Amino acid sequence: MKHFLEPASVALIGVSRRSGPGSYNLMENMLEYGFPGKIIPINPQADEILGVKAWPNVQAAAQPIDLAVISLPRDLVLTSVAECVAAGVKAIIVVTQGFGDADARGRELQAEMVALARQNGARILGPNTLGVVNNFNRLTTSFMPLVREKSPVGLICQSGVFFVGADNFSGQIGKGIDLGNACDVGFCEALEYLGDDPDIKIIAVHMEGLERTRDFLSLAARVSRTKPVLVYKTGKSETGARAVASHTGSLAGHYRIYEAALRQAGVLFLDEDWQMGEAVRTLLNQPPMPGDRVAVITVTGAGGIMASDALEKYGLCPATLADATIKAVADLSPEWMPLGNPLDLWPAVMRHGLREVYPVALTAVLDDPGVDSVLMMSIAPDLPRFEFLDVSEGVNQALPREKSKPVVAWLYGPNRGQVGRRFEQEDKILVYQSIERAAWSLSLLRERGKFLERIEADRANS
Amino acid sequence: MKHFLEPASVALIGVSRRSGPGSYNLMENMLEYGFPGKIIPINPQADEILGVKAWPNVQAAAQPIDLAVISLPRDLVLTSVAECVAAGVKAIIVVTQGFGDADARGRELQAEMVALARQNGARILGPNTLGVVNNFNRLTTSFMPLVREKSPVGLICQSGVFFVGADNFSGQIGKGIDLGNACDVGFCEALEYLGDDPDIKIIAVHMEGLERTRDFLSLAARVSRTKPVLVYKTGKSETGARAVASHTGSLAGHYRIYEAALRQAGVLFLDEDWQMGEAVRTLLNQPPMPGDRVAVITVTGAGGIMASDALEKYGLCPATLADATIKAVADLSPEWMPLGNPLDLWPAVMRHGLREVYPVALTAVLDDPGVDSVLMMSIAPDLPRFEFLDVSEGVNQALPREKSKPVVAWLYGPNRGQVGRRFEQEDKILVYQSIERAAWSLSLLRERGKFLERIEADRANS
Repeated sequence: MKHFLEPASVALIGVSRRSGPGSYNLMENMLEYGFPGKIIPINPQADEILGVKAWPNVQAAAQPIDLAVISLPRDLVLTSVAECVAAGVKAIIVVTQGFGDADARGRELQAEMVALARQNGARILGPNTLGVVNNFNRLTTSFMPLVREKSPVGLICQSGVFFVGADNFSGQIGKGIDLGNACDVGFCEALEYLGDDPDIKIIAVHMEGLERTRDFLSLAARVSRTKPVLVYKTGKSETGARAVASHTGSLAGHYRIYEAALRQAGVLFLDEDWQMGEAVRTLLNQPPMPGDRVAVITVTGAGGIMASDALEKYGLCPATLADATIKAVADLSPEWMPLGNPLDLWPAVMRHGLREVYPVALTAVLDDPGVDSVLMMSIAPDLPRFEFLDVSEGVNQALPREKSKPVVAWLYGPNRGQVGRRFEQEDKILVYQSIERAAWSLSLLRERGKFLERIEADRANS
Repeated sequence: MKHFLEPASVALIGVSRRSGPGSYNLMENMLEYGFPGKIIPINPQADEILGVKAWPNVQAAAQPIDLAVISLPRDLVLTSVAECVAAGVKAIIVVTQGFGDADARGRELQAEMVALARQNGARILGPNTLGVVNNFNRLTTSFMPLVREKSPVGLICQSGVFFVGADNFSGQIGKGIDLGNACDVGFCEALEYLGDDPDIKIIAVHMEGLERTRDFLSLAARVSRTKPVLVYKTGKSETGARAVASHTGSLAGHYRIYEAALRQAGVLFLDEDWQMGEAVRTLLNQPPMPGDRVAVITVTGAGGIMASDALEKYGLCPATLADATIKAVADLSPEWMPLGNPLDLWPAVMRHGLREVYPVALTAVLDDPGVDSVLMMSIAPDLPRFEFLDVSEGVNQALPREKSKPVVAWLYGPNRGQVGRRFEQEDKILVYQSIERAAWSLSLLRERGKFLERIEADRANS
């Protein structure tokens, strides 16, 4: 995979002379991205492209090529692959569509291409791919614009939508590998590379079909020991599975079997399209949850009830708060106020003010040995008019720098964006858009915690 | 309910002389809101409050009072209610907490208060409530600031969080009734009022417990014929149900039984906290779905698969596209491209451009008699640089003004906010944050469609 993600020289085969809006010019995108290695355009109709000398073919270029990126009509691809392997190129990305994702002819061409590469010790990524992105060396082979960010997120996917729509999925991409039809380079190679990569702390996977299942599972189990591996498997429905066959030519397989096997390997298995982004930011920001017991701190009784419903749905337990914890809030509340978990601060707030009460309650709950994590509910008021209803500062002061228990928040009110950023600004807490998402995210941290406990127990027993 | 929502004069009993930040002064909030009726402050310690003459009690005020709002310490409330009924007040809001939501003494006080009101033909809203909001006559009895909007959304709830956090729940509130503990005025009275109100087109309900279940169900069935009634029932979990008892003193009851009975009555039953807002905007903007068959138009094969998975999950069917529909896109696609539903336009886009292909496909799909609704997937590119990847204009031109089939969209890319607003600006289409939400929203429109079909069939048979 090193040639794919860390090439010193890249040949762009079939790169167009057209550039600018609507041309989807890969080389233009690559230059704009600031790739510091050598770019070698290959186009028999051009002497130069975007100011760089062009060559009619890879032989003529007569220089070492680490990576070739082929974007040619599908009937020209096989010949081009043959030229690449003849010139000693070991890593080839085939961007072109119309292979295993298309008709019988496409499947044939794909098989021939793979055979040719294997005979010559070369590897093919794709076809039907945007290729790779590596924000640590400013490499992109995508003809679509991407966001650049040196983020610790490794992405493996079977579609460019995860590159272009990073905002909808993993949120960030440090290094990305689009396997497309995965005709040769597959999930195992990609996971192994990113698993061993010290720049990468978490791995997000979109999967339509999987080959070498057993290898992948044992690899996933190994990688999961040091970094979370998230898998979003699509093609779950009957229509979806049929669409998988015509999208990447993969076999979608039996969803529940994949789910069980992947979870067993320690993979965090995702089920809905919005979960990847929430999972990534949650796992990068919050510690694994050391037990099942959640304390809910709220300034709305109704919100506390909703939180209880959501936590139970995701398999978490309400913490039984210690007497000392209850007392800390009871001392501030009217005597008639029944206190428990959810811990409703509102009557105390009406007496002493939100900013006075909230940090006291939070500190008490965090110090409670019967609490494994905290779901905080507070207000996102109009600012600056209702500044006194924003407790972000007091909350951040009350939270320790060292995170051992996850702390997540849900805010209600008209100003969730601005107040949410204040809550998150010291990187101690995460705010979620819905109670449902906050509870789901805690369940993911608990799943991660359980896996690490299992690993630890196995180690102790061996 | 008219006295509660359309009073000409409001007495504020226990209103404080303190105003400004942190005072939670109801009168200040009410004045700021611009209530055009008479405000009568009652406070034995003050001659005037915020420039308005104050009276020691309602008798002394010696003027007609349509609505009294009591915010006094709980031990003073009963006497105040007695004074109100003696002065002929027929509508009383008790803001104060500490009754059915608290201890044995609170439950006793609540029962006495109700008995007193009933003996005198008065009604009590609350206790433990923010009262009402009516944006059509600029009335609020909330001591917390609210958003003002003449919206066709009627809200019935048991907590102020739905007023203050409107942004998190129904999104908008035209008229709102917070039942609090619902000691006297309950769901039936509120639903009947909003059901008959011509300003209100949809009714959002948050429910912890329900009394007069049978009356409510027949009322809900009647109201649902003309406007959608949404119910978000909380206290589903064991902890949640316990918390309900100490929040509003209600009995949470058996969740599944509520669900079945409410659905049978035509209520759209919600399960998660984010659903209310999506449901309201969806039902206000899109028509009921006339059948189960959804066409997915996509520029990402992977996205089409995710959409298929989500639609199946919510009980919807993939439409079988007519030959003419397929042909319209096949004519623009490479010959190797397998086309179906999801209808993947990408290879055609690479040949002809996104703006050229998208409206052709959309028109063909909308004209297809085998299609009941459309889920569109497109790109939200960086602007203005990638303007040519935004198809909002062409899509809006292709969509008819008359909406008979729901059309919803999901966008991927870095600029979902701005491009989403463009898609929505002609009010023909709604954009969703996740594929999951788009599919769920269609299923809600289908549920509404089925209910109306059932009504129609019953009418035809009778």
